[in-house]
Formats: sequence, C-alpha cells, structure tokens
Amino acid sequence: MATWAEWLRIALEALATAAFALSGAMEAARKRLDAVGVCVVSCLAAFGGGTLRDLLLDQRPFFWVRHVELLWAVLGLCLLAMLFLRHRHFEPTERAIQWPDALGLGLFTAVGVDQALQNQLPVLVAVLMGVITGVFGGVLRDMVCNEIPTAFRDHRPYAVCAFAGGWAHVALVALGQGGTLALVACVLVTAGLRGLSLWRGWQIPGWRA
Amino acid sequence: MATWAEWLRIALEALATAAFALSGAMEAARKRLDAVGVCVVSCLAAFGGGTLRDLLLDQRPFFWVRHVELLWAVLGLCLLAMLFLRHRHFEPTERAIQWPDALGLGLFTAVGVDQALQNQLPVLVAVLMGVITGVFGGVLRDMVCNEIPTAFRDHRPYAVCAFAGGWAHVALVALGQGGTLALVACVLVTAGLRGLSLWRGWQIPGWRA
Amino acid sequence: MATWAEWLRIALEALATAAFALSGAMEAARKRLDAVGVCVVSCLAAFGGGTLRDLLLDQRPFFWVRHVELLWAVLGLCLLAMLFLRHRHFEPTERAIQWPDALGLGLFTAVGVDQALQNQLPVLVAVLMGVITGVFGGVLRDMVCNEIPTAFRDHRPYAVCAFAGGWAHVALVALGQGGTLALVACVLVTAGLRGLSLWRGWQIPGWRA
Repeated sequence: MATWAEWLRIALEALATAAFALSGAMEAARKRLDAVGVCVVSCLAAFGGGTLRDLLLDQRPFFWVRHVELLWAVLGLCLLAMLFLRHRHFEPTERAIQWPDALGLGLFTAVGVDQALQNQLPVLVAVLMGVITGVFGGVLRDMVCNEIPTAFRDHRPYAVCAFAGGWAHVALVALGQGGTLALVACVLVTAGLRGLSLWRGWQIPGWRA
Repeated sequence: MATWAEWLRIALEALATAAFALSGAMEAARKRLDAVGVCVVSCLAAFGGGTLRDLLLDQRPFFWVRHVELLWAVLGLCLLAMLFLRHRHFEPTERAIQWPDALGLGLFTAVGVDQALQNQLPVLVAVLMGVITGVFGGVLRDMVCNEIPTAFRDHRPYAVCAFAGGWAHVALVALGQGGTLALVACVLVTAGLRGLSLWRGWQIPGWRA
Repeated sequence: MATWAEWLRIALEALATAAFALSGAMEAARKRLDAVGVCVVSCLAAFGGGTLRDLLLDQRPFFWVRHVELLWAVLGLCLLAMLFLRHRHFEPTERAIQWPDALGLGLFTAVGVDQALQNQLPVLVAVLMGVITGVFGGVLRDMVCNEIPTAFRDHRPYAVCAFAGGWAHVALVALGQGGTLALVACVLVTAGLRGLSLWRGWQIPGWRA
C-alpha cells in the first residue's frame, strides 16, 4: 500500500516536472535560442523553484543532486522535443500541459510548505516558500528569456492558487492533521483552484488607473 | 534612554522599508502587473538587498523570518496602495519618498557593513556588502520588471553614496570607534551625500564615447 | 618547479579574469550605463560564475573574499578602461580578448568541476558546476544589461565546449588520473574546442521551425 502510494507520487512528480520542462523548452524555442539555451531554460523552469527554496532554506544537497536521474531525464526530454516538436505543435502542447502543470504547481507547493515547516519557519514564510517552489521556476525561465514573468502580469490566478493551497496545508498542520493529509489537501486546493480558474476564466485585478 | 534610541531605530527602519516597498509597488503598477506582481516586486524592493546579503554571508534566519511582521506590513501596504493610490499620485509620491529612501539607503548600508565586519570579512568586501544591502533591492525590482537597473544608468549618485558611507563606517571601526558611532556616521554620510546630490543635481560620469 | 607552475597558473587566471571583466565593461558602455553600472557589470562578468558555484556548493568564503586583491584589480581595470578605451577600440579589443576568454572558460570550468568532485557530487552535476563556473558570469552580465544571454542564443559553441571539457576531466578522474593532469586536460579540451569553433565558424543547431 505504502509502495503503491509512493509510486503514484513519483509518477505524478515526473509528469509535473516534464510539463514544467516543456514549458521552458517551448519558450526558448519561441525566442530562437540555440540548443544550449533550450536545455538551460528548460532546466531552470523544471528545477529553478525548488533550487531557490533550497538556497533560501540553506538545504543541501539539492533534490536534483539526490535524484540526478531527473536531470538526465530533462536533458533527454529537451533532445526529444528538439527532434520531434515543431512550432505548429506548440499551441496544442501548451493546452495539453496546462493540467499536469496545475498538478505540478500543487505538488511543488506542498513540498515547499512541508520543508519550510520542518525548518520551524513562521507560517506566512512557510506558505511563501511553497509559492516560491511552485512559481519561481517559471519566473526564472521568463527572466532569462528577457520577459516580465507571466505569473506577475497575465491576471490569471497562479501564484494565488498556490498561496491558498499553502494556507490549507498550514491550517491542517495547526489542527494536528500533519503528514500526508496536509500534503494531499494542499495539492487538491492548489491544483483544483488553478483548474477552476482556467475553466471559468477567472481574473485577478490589476492596479486601477 | 537605550529604549528610546531603540524605538527611534525601529521607527526609522519601518519608514525606510515602506519607502522601498512603495517604490516597488509603483514600478509594478507602471508595468501593468497584476496584484500578485505588485506584491512580489514590492517585497523584492523592500527585502531583496538584505536577503542577497544574508545569502552571500550565509546567515540564517533571514531578517524577514525573524521579524515576520515586516512581511505582513509590506503585504498590507501593497493592499492599501492598490486601493487608494492612483497613477496621478505617483509623481508626488515619488518625490515624497526620496527622503525616507535616502535614509533607508543609509540604514541598510550601515547594517550590511556592520554584519560583514562581524563576519571578519576584508574591509572592501564589507563596504560592498553594505552597498549590496542598500542598493540590490532596487536592482532586483528593476530586473524583474525587465529594465536595466536605474542605479546603474541614471547617472545620479546612489550606490556611490552608500560606498562613501561604508568607508566612513570602516574607517571609524579601524580607529577603534566601533558600535553605534560608526553606524550613525555611515547613515549620516550616506543619506547626507544622497540628499546633497539630489538637491544639487550632481551627476556621475558615464563612458566617454 | 612547483613554484613556477603555480606562478603560471596565477598569471593565466589573472589574464582570464581581466578578459571577462573587460567584456562586462564594454557591454555596460554599449548600454550607456554610468560608472557604477560599468563596475558592477564588470564584477558580475568576472566573478558571477564562481560566486554562483560557491552559493550552490555552499562554500564560503568566496574566492574574491580570499583573494580580495582580485576585486581591487577589477575595479582598477574598470577605471583604466573608462579613462583610455574609446568606443572605436571596442571591436579590436573584443577580437583580442577572444583568446584569453577561451582560456578563462577552460580554467574556470576546470576549477568548478574539481571543486564539485571534492564535494562528492555526481559526475553530471560536477560537469554542470564546471559549465556554470565558466559561463554564468557572462549570463548574469547579459541579464543585468537586459539582454537574452549571448551564450544561449548566438549558436556559437561556448557552454558546449565547457561541457566537453568537463567530461574529459571527469573521465580522467574516473581512470585514476586525478589532480593536475585532469585539470590540464579540461583546460586544453575546453579552450581548444572553443578556439577551433571560432576558427572554423562552427554553429550549434537551434530549434527547427
């Protein structure tokens, strides 16, 4: 049973990492980067958020050092994408990866909140570490590609979903329901809100002129 | 007496942090970011310099983890600014925050130099850590907003004032006048030079063609 | 004999650091930054890659803290460049520094791989730490100047040469030929490939439309 849940978690994380990596590879392709740029931006999108969290929490080794097979997989995925994915496939691919991407936002947020709480950080900081883990891969991807990060300007809830999911996690831990239940709740709230907001076309407000 | 000075310091730091945070919120508004972007850029402007210093000095917990009320205050300030500040208020606001911003540059520089000296770093490195603490919040703010950092191209002395203030600090410590006196001197030299340069319209040179 | 090799290494590293710093100063000049911006971008180009490696490996003190004379030298070089280098000198200077730059890419890569291996990191991670040490100074330089990093889009092998050199280093260590031989091989492979690719005009592929 434990093994089965463990395998499910690994499969979901691999799927989410692939979605993040693909988003990076396609943005790099749009910006006409060369093969090196594609690999770097893809790795930044996939691993940037978790690496920034580990830097801030002063945790070593990084998760992509403990699981170096993830690095190999992302580099392999970049190679496959460069061989088989053409510009006309980008739009359908981006629509298809919206759902594993929402799942990844939830998973990475849950991991970030969990590790921050294990470091005895205040709850607001723990929630923000979750948001950073889920969102800053995409932020770094956009910054390297010389764009204002999409997460900060497209008015579609993304970081906000992770923020809500992080509070759900923290609330359950405060109620004594730590461990798996809090993790699952964080993933469901985050990914659920993200899915809902995509489906209903929710907008977050900007600055009124 | 000690308590009174302590309260003054806390009040000044809160004022300076608010000025930095407001500069971030207004730049985000100008770039038409959404509410998430406004909060992130504002936090980067307020906390980015000190966080980068703590990363470089390998210091944990970050000051915004020890004083998590600062994070709440900046998020609250963003909310208030989005509710009540309109684009037509930006120019007078920016003129008004020049002075607390100059003060903040001085305070943050002094803290940075002080912590670097406590880590037994060479004096040039200590001065640079002061400059990083005071200046790199604004640098990160501009980088996320996809601008060349203002501090590096507007020809108005800013980092240079922090550099001078840092040397004043280091000089007093070398003369055996550490502690409060060095901190106050650093603040006065930095903020004084910044005020003077704004008042007199001083320019720093660029590259001659 | 040991002393003679040591002196050669120090001279080569100083030459390479100067080439990296000059590339930063000239990019800053092209972007019309002021004197502060020139110094910052120059330091980022010279020290950014090694600093990012030390951050990721959690190594302190940074090499520019242990050798603070390097910082002084780069600041002095910026001053000299601003005094004596004119825009019409930029193109011949850039052609002249291609060769010390290729050497620097090799030296910095070798140091990065070596330090990662001493930290018992997996070989892929060690190679990537070498690449980061050699390449990310230029990446940070370009990001601060609001450009997509040249290393990711100019289709000329640069990071790829460091990648190959890193694998040569790792292979020799795996064969029991560690120490100086592996370092020298990494420098020769990296700098040699870079020189060859400049001479023959090699291109790395981009994304096929």
